[in-house]
Amino acid sequence: MGDSKSNSNSDRAVGEEVSRLIDSAKELQDSASSLISRTTREDEALRQRALALDSAIRTLRCSISSLVRNGNLDPKEADKLEEELYRSSYILSEGDAAAFIPRKSHGRFLSMFLGPINVRATRKDVQLKVKEEYNSFRDRTAFLFLFFPSLLLVLRTWIWGGCLPALPVQLYQAWLLYLYTGLALRENILRVNGSDIRPWWIYHHYFAMAMALISLTWEIEREPDCAQKQRGVQLFLKWAIMQGVAMLLQNRYQRQRLYTRIALGKARRMDVVWGETAGVEGQLWLLAPILFILQGFEAYVGMLLLKTALVGVVSEWQVTTCGILLIIMAAGNFANTVETLLAKSRFKAKMKKSKSKPELNPQSHS
Amino acid sequence: MGDSKSNSNSDRAVGEEVSRLIDSAKELQDSASSLISRTTREDEALRQRALALDSAIRTLRCSISSLVRNGNLDPKEADKLEEELYRSSYILSEGDAAAFIPRKSHGRFLSMFLGPINVRATRKDVQLKVKEEYNSFRDRTAFLFLFFPSLLLVLRTWIWGGCLPALPVQLYQAWLLYLYTGLALRENILRVNGSDIRPWWIYHHYFAMAMALISLTWEIEREPDCAQKQRGVQLFLKWAIMQGVAMLLQNRYQRQRLYTRIALGKARRMDVVWGETAGVEGQLWLLAPILFILQGFEAYVGMLLLKTALVGVVSEWQVTTCGILLIIMAAGNFANTVETLLAKSRFKAKMKKSKSKPELNPQSHS
Repeated sequence: MGDSKSNSNSDRAVGEEVSRLIDSAKELQDSASSLISRTTREDEALRQRALALDSAIRTLRCSISSLVRNGNLDPKEADKLEEELYRSSYILSEGDAAAFIPRKSHGRFLSMFLGPINVRATRKDVQLKVKEEYNSFRDRTAFLFLFFPSLLLVLRTWIWGGCLPALPVQLYQAWLLYLYTGLALRENILRVNGSDIRPWWIYHHYFAMAMALISLTWEIEREPDCAQKQRGVQLFLKWAIMQGVAMLLQNRYQRQRLYTRIALGKARRMDVVWGETAGVEGQLWLLAPILFILQGFEAYVGMLLLKTALVGVVSEWQVTTCGILLIIMAAGNFANTVETLLAKSRFKAKMKKSKSKPELNPQSHS
Repeated sequence: MGDSKSNSNSDRAVGEEVSRLIDSAKELQDSASSLISRTTREDEALRQRALALDSAIRTLRCSISSLVRNGNLDPKEADKLEEELYRSSYILSEGDAAAFIPRKSHGRFLSMFLGPINVRATRKDVQLKVKEEYNSFRDRTAFLFLFFPSLLLVLRTWIWGGCLPALPVQLYQAWLLYLYTGLALRENILRVNGSDIRPWWIYHHYFAMAMALISLTWEIEREPDCAQKQRGVQLFLKWAIMQGVAMLLQNRYQRQRLYTRIALGKARRMDVVWGETAGVEGQLWLLAPILFILQGFEAYVGMLLLKTALVGVVSEWQVTTCGILLIIMAAGNFANTVETLLAKSRFKAKMKKSKSKPELNPQSHS
C-alpha cells in the first residue's frame, strides 16, 4: 500500500517535470523560429541596401571617368573623388557590411566535391581565421615540399643505388594529389569569402592535381637502364625542391608585406599571398629572378619529358601529358608574374604622378 | 570661361554625390555591425537555453529508468512518459531550435581538406536541400557505377580481344577516387548538419578511397597471359556492377521509406539512407539477401586477390593490400547490416509489447 502510494507520488512528480520540459521545448522552438525569421528579414533588407550602394558607386565611377574624358572634370579633382569613392567601397568590403554584399557563386569545383553547402562565413573574424589557417597550411606545406623530394633523392644515392623504388615515389605523388586538392578547395572557399585571388593560381592547382593523378599511373621501376628511364622523375623531384624554396621565401616575405599593406589600408584582409609578386616591393628584386628561374626550369623539365617520349626511351602517354602540363603551367605562371609586375609598375608610376595619399589609391590587382 | 564654369558645376554635383555615398556606406556599416552583434547575442542566449533543455531531458530520462529499476515507477507509466520526452527532444532536433543545439565537431577529414570553415547550415530548408542533393548525387552515381564497368567488360570482349587496356581502366579508377572523396566529404557535412549516419559508412568510404588510390598505381597491361593476370581487375569490375544494382535498389526503396517515416514522424529529416537496411521493412526480404550476396562476393574477390598474390602470378603489394581492404570492407558491411537487422527486430518486439502510438517511439538507429 505504501509502495503504491510512493509510486503514484513519483509518477506525479516525474509527470509534471515532463510536461514542464515539453512546454519549454515548445517555447524555445517559438523563440528560435521568430529569431530566424526576423534575422532573415533584416538580412534581406541590408542585402538590398548593400546592393544598391555597390551599384551606385560603380555608376558614379563610370560617370566620373566619362566626365574627365569629355573635359568636363578636372583630372586632379577626379583623382581625389575616386579616392573617396574607393574609401566607401573599402568600408563596404572590409567592414561588417561585407557579409551582405551579394556572394560570388560557389563555382563548379566546390559543388562537385561538397554539394550545395554554403561555405561563406558571415562574421569577419571567422573569415580571417580561415585566411590565417590557409597561410599556415601553406607554411607547413612548403617545408614538406622541400623535405620529401630531398629525402627521395638522398636515399636514391645513398641507399637505393641510383634506382628509385616505386612505393616511396607513389606515396609522394599521392601526397601531392591530396595537397593540390586541398589547396584548390581552400582557395575556392577563400574566393567565395571575398578574396581576390587571381583565377590563374586556382587553375594552376587544377593542372597540378591532374599531373599528380597522372603521375600515379606512371610506371616507375624499370630495372635495366633505370638511371636513364627515371630521368624525368629525378628532374621533377629537383624542380619540386626549388619550388619548395621559392614557396618558403614567398610565404615569409609576402605575409610580412600583406600585414604592412593591411595596416596601410591598401590590401583587403582576405587577399591571398599566392599572387607571386603581388605586394612585394623591396624584396621584389630578390624574388622575381627566383620565380623566373623556377618557371624556366619548369618549362625545361616539361621539354625534357616531351623529348624522352619522342625519342622513344619511354613511350607512355603519361610522359607526354605531364610534359605538356608542365609547359602550360610554366607559361601561365610566367604570364601572370609579368602581369603582376606590370600592374605594379603602372601603379608606382601613377603614385609618382599623383603623390596624394597613396595608401588610399585603389590596388590594381583585379 | 564657360567651360571652366560647367567644370566647377559638375565638380560640385559629383562631389556631393560622392559624399552622399560615403555617408550611406558608413550608415550601412553601422546597421550591419549592430545587426550582427545583436544576432550573435540572441543566438548565444538561445544556444544556452537549448543546451540546458537538452541536458534536462537527458537527466530526466536517466531518472525515469532508475525509478523503474527500483520499482518506484510503473513501467507502463514510464513508457508513456518516455514517449512524451521523445516528443520534446524531437521538437528540439527537428524544428528551428535545432540550429542552436551545440554542433558536432567537424572532424579531421573535413578540416584536412577544407580548413576551419563552418559547413553547418542554420536554416532547416538549406539543410534539407543539402540532404536532397546528396540523395540525387547518389542516384546519378549509381547509374554510372553500373554503366562504366559494364562498358569496360563489354568492350573487353568485343573490341579489345580479352585484354583490358590501361587507360580506360585508370580513368574509371580516377572517377572512383573522385566519387568516394565526394561521398566522404558530403557525408561528413551531413553529419555536422545533424544526420545520424552510421560512422561505419563513412569509414567504408575512406577505405574505398584508399583502394581507388592504390589501384591507380597498379600496373594493368601485361601482354603475355593477360587473361590470367587481369583476373583481379575483371572480378573487381563484376563486383562493381553488382554494387551498382544494389545501390539503385537501395536508393529507390529507402528513399520511399524515408519519406514515409518522415511523414509518420519516426525519422529525423537529416537521416541518411546509406544505412543499408535501416528503414526498410516490406522490402527487407528482397534487399537483405542481395546485400549479403554482395558482401560475400566482395570478400570472395578479396580472397582471390590474396590468392593471386600468394601463388605469385602477380606479386605487387597493391594486389595484397586491395585484397585485405576488400575483406575488411566486406566484414564491416556485414557486421553493420546484421546490427541494423537486430536493432530492427528488437524495435519490432518492443512495439508488439507496448502497442502504444508506435510512430512516436524512439528509433533505435544510434
